[in-house]
Order: sequence, then structure tokens, then C-alpha cells
Amino acid sequence: MTNKITSIPIFKNITVIGPGLIGSSILRRIQKDPTISEYTVAVDNHPEVCYRVKKLKIANKVSSDPVESVKNADCVILAIPVGAMQEVAKQIIPHMKKGAILTDTGSTKASVIAAITPYLTSDISFVPAHPMAGTEFSGPDAGFESLFENRWCLITPTTSTGKESVYKIERFWQAMGANTRILDIRHHDKICAIVSHLPHLLAFTICNTADSLADETRSEVLDYAASGFRDFTRIAASDPIMWKDIFLNNREAILEMLARFTEDAQAMAKAIRWQDEDYIVKTIKKGREIRKSLINNKQA
Amino acid sequence: MTNKITSIPIFKNITVIGPGLIGSSILRRIQKDPTISEYTVAVDNHPEVCYRVKKLKIANKVSSDPVESVKNADCVILAIPVGAMQEVAKQIIPHMKKGAILTDTGSTKASVIAAITPYLTSDISFVPAHPMAGTEFSGPDAGFESLFENRWCLITPTTSTGKESVYKIERFWQAMGANTRILDIRHHDKICAIVSHLPHLLAFTICNTADSLADETRSEVLDYAASGFRDFTRIAASDPIMWKDIFLNNREAILEMLARFTEDAQAMAKAIRWQDEDYIVKTIKKGREIRKSLINNKQA
Repeated sequence: MTNKITSIPIFKNITVIGPGLIGSSILRRIQKDPTISEYTVAVDNHPEVCYRVKKLKIANKVSSDPVESVKNADCVILAIPVGAMQEVAKQIIPHMKKGAILTDTGSTKASVIAAITPYLTSDISFVPAHPMAGTEFSGPDAGFESLFENRWCLITPTTSTGKESVYKIERFWQAMGANTRILDIRHHDKICAIVSHLPHLLAFTICNTADSLADETRSEVLDYAASGFRDFTRIAASDPIMWKDIFLNNREAILEMLARFTEDAQAMAKAIRWQDEDYIVKTIKKGREIRKSLINNKQA
Repeated sequence: MTNKITSIPIFKNITVIGPGLIGSSILRRIQKDPTISEYTVAVDNHPEVCYRVKKLKIANKVSSDPVESVKNADCVILAIPVGAMQEVAKQIIPHMKKGAILTDTGSTKASVIAAITPYLTSDISFVPAHPMAGTEFSGPDAGFESLFENRWCLITPTTSTGKESVYKIERFWQAMGANTRILDIRHHDKICAIVSHLPHLLAFTICNTADSLADETRSEVLDYAASGFRDFTRIAASDPIMWKDIFLNNREAILEMLARFTEDAQAMAKAIRWQDEDYIVKTIKKGREIRKSLINNKQA
């Protein structure tokens, strides 16, 4: 029924700032589907990233100048670490086209909104978004066009985000293959703290705990990692700067979830010390049930 | 060079007590490789397990009577939860053939050795062993013949374990596809606490933390689990009785590793609270390095 050649793209010009894992996956998807955008610009302040994006031929233009690159864009996507959002937004917003949409892909939303809002003007609509997809790899070579397929993209509008802009960003992410959902900002940050940020924190931590063991034991950890450690630490290979920013930018929610988790872990330790078999079995069974729910939910 | 028909099997008769994930994988491997054993008996006290093993046709004989089943065995393998070892060993040892080998597949070694040693007689050689392989599934249907392929099997002889018995059990596990290594008992328990027991404890715990969140958030945890939680909790689907036993039977080492881990997690929490960027980045980078070592070690 649709005719790709004559259909109007969602955005005529899209500028992606930060063509890393997420940004380069967006660019790859657009390249395969011209109904998303006719023209793309990729911007990065690292020459080696620009070089790779040029080599990969996934953007119509590659630039290291964010100001120049946003001038003609109908949509600017900030796909950079959440700690870098403020500086870049401050720099580009005055140069954006009237009526253009600014959106982001950050994993924390309250902090990104707080960082960007002071610099917004009435003719730029900001649509905070968070595609819940990723791998433990990073950089433009790590991206792939199906990264967002059947993943969620959570959109957390502010009180000043226009409904039409939200609708366009929803359409954009659906074209990326994602399912979209509108969420309250604080609620988003709490959910991400437990499903993503805390697991990453624990994975980084256990790797450090293993690393600080006696030399002999540490080398054996590597030998025998197949017994749980390996799966458990896959996510610990993720990008350091991105994750440092996430931890600092979703501080309250992460510290709350870590406190709850620590209480639960201490209760388990106490049960092990005092041989409370019922408590231990009950805890393990509840863990299994959550896993079963995940499988029923087709997430595992 | 080898002639399977005329070669002498490692053991003429093997009895596997507990044909679950591990036990049924052993039986399947023997079935494919007659140089391991000529005749197998599977024993279980659950009628439904016996029924499944009969249906699967992976043992020459299936029985619910351990005493009768060990009489002709040259090797008896205890593939049962570590908490059940003592009772079964006490029951079967007096009925075992003189010169036969008793071995086990338990994930904790000091406790299993302490449980079995009082019942040993001078004509039975006990070779404690631990194949480091498994999945999150359990029961006879979950097993497969390649489960031990390229995995480690750690052997922890006691002062009274004969060298020849150790050698035979090593040959047995190598025939299962595993690499074998002789390890000190306490050292084994410490390594397993960090590479396997603690990751499982943390996975069970975070599932419970998620489960205790407000109803709305909990259901969203299931929706958005792809962002780390899912991988992180895969191992939480493991068998409750087996894991309760492991936690109780490797108590000291697990509590020590959990205490070290908790200190490291609290240090991370403090760094997040006080925005100590250097500490956070350093911790994440160390985590990544351990992961990289795993990849270089071909364990990931």
C-alpha cells in the first residue's frame, strides 16, 4: 500500500550528534529506510569517530562542527553520554532551525531534562527519549540497523513538550523497529535504576572484587569463569564514560535501589549464617518466578 | 588407532545416583562412547525422574533402590544436591563392591568430604570431583552429552584418596570432554564462591529486590528487562534445593566473598553520592579489563 518513493519522510534532515553504538545504529537504519529521513549528518568531536563513520558510509555528511551541522536539521538527536548533554545543547540550540525537534537517547531522563531545559527556546521542541537497547560494545563500528528491533523506546515528555513533536518522535522510533511508550520522568529513572543501572553497577563491582583477590585465585577466576561469573559480567564490558555519567545522573534512584538490594543481600547472608533453609529456598524460588515471568514475557 | 570394540572401558559398571542435569549428561555421554563404561545404572528416589530416564533410554537399568544398584558398580557417582550426600553415602558404602570408586559432582568440596569421610571403609576409594558445567535448567530432560565439553572438572583428593583412583576419575572426566585439574579442597571452595556461588546469590537477590518493588514498577521490570536485568538474572532460574545446599555447605567462603563484594559496592555507592568521577571510572575500567581477560582466555 505504501509507496516509499513518493511518501514524505518523517524528517527531511536528521543530524545525529555522537555516532557511537546508538547513533550509528540510527544512521544505519535510516540508510535502509528512506521513509525516515532523506539526509543525515553525523557529528563527533573525535576525529577517529568521524573517520570511521566516513569509511562506513552511513551518513550523507560527517562533521566535527555541531553548530554548522544543526542549521538545516528538522531533527537533532543527541546520542552522547548524559554528562555531555548540557554543553552540547547549550552550544547548538541557538543555531537550530525554527520549529525543529531536539531529542536525545540518554539512559537517565530527569538529569538530561534539567540540563537542557534552561537553554531551550520557544521555537525548539525538546522530546526526551530513551531507546532501551544496547550491547556491551561501543563506537560507530559496533552499531547495526536492527539494534532497536522489538526493543522499547521510552519517551518522557516535559510539561512544555508539544504533542505533535512527541507523535513524530514516536513514529521515528517505530520506524527504527522499536515499541514506544510514554512515561513519567521520575518513574522512568526508577525503573531504569533497577533493570539496567543497578545490574551494571553490580557487574562492575564483582569484577573488581575478583580482581582484588590474591593473585593465584584471580587467575583461576579467569579459568573457571564459565560457572556463572561469565554471564554475570558480560555487561561489565560497557563504556566507562557513558556509565560514569549514568551513575552520577541517576544518583538518587540508583542509591535507593542499591540500598534495597544490599538489605536483601544482607538478609540472605544472615539466613546462610544461621542456616535458615526456609528463607533461602523461598528467596531462590521467588528469583526463579521472576525469571519465569521474563520468559513468559518473551524478554528472555 | 583405537578399536572401540576391543578396548577395555574405564569402568565396567557405573552407577549414577541422581540422573538430573549433570547425572543424565554423564549417562548420555557414556551411551555415545562405550569406552567409558559397558553398563550403567541410574538411581533416583523420585518416581517421575525414574520414569523420564526410562523413557529417554539413557541407562541400561533404572532403579529407585540405591543399595541394590551399587552392588555391582566399579564406580558410583553421586550427582545429587550436596546436602543429600551424607545420607546416601551412609546408605550405600556398606554395600559397595570391594575396590570400587566412589565419586561425586558436588559444587562444594570441604563439606561433601566432611559428610562422607566418616562412612568410608578402607576398601572404597573416594575421589571428590566437581565438573564446572551446568545450565539454568534441571532434571533428566535438561541433560545433553556435550555438557562437559571443554569445561573444567576439578578434582580435590583427600589425604586418603589413592593416586590410581584419582587417575581413573581424571580419565573418566577427560572422556566426558572435560579438562581436569587437581586442586586443594579449601582453595576449590574459595574459587567457586567467587566465580559461581556469589554470582548466583546476587542474581537471586536482585530478582527479589525487583519483586518487592511497587506493583506498577515490578510489572515494568518485566517489560524492560532487556537492558541488563535479563542477562544478569539468567542464572537465577537454577534449582532451589541444589542452591540452598550449596549456600549452606560453602557458608564461610560465600559469606567472606559477599562481605568483600558488599564493601566494594558500598565504596561505589559512596563515590556516586560524592561524585568521585575518578573512582567510578577506575572501577568501571577495571571491570572491563577483567572481562577482556575472560575473552582472551576464551571463556566468554
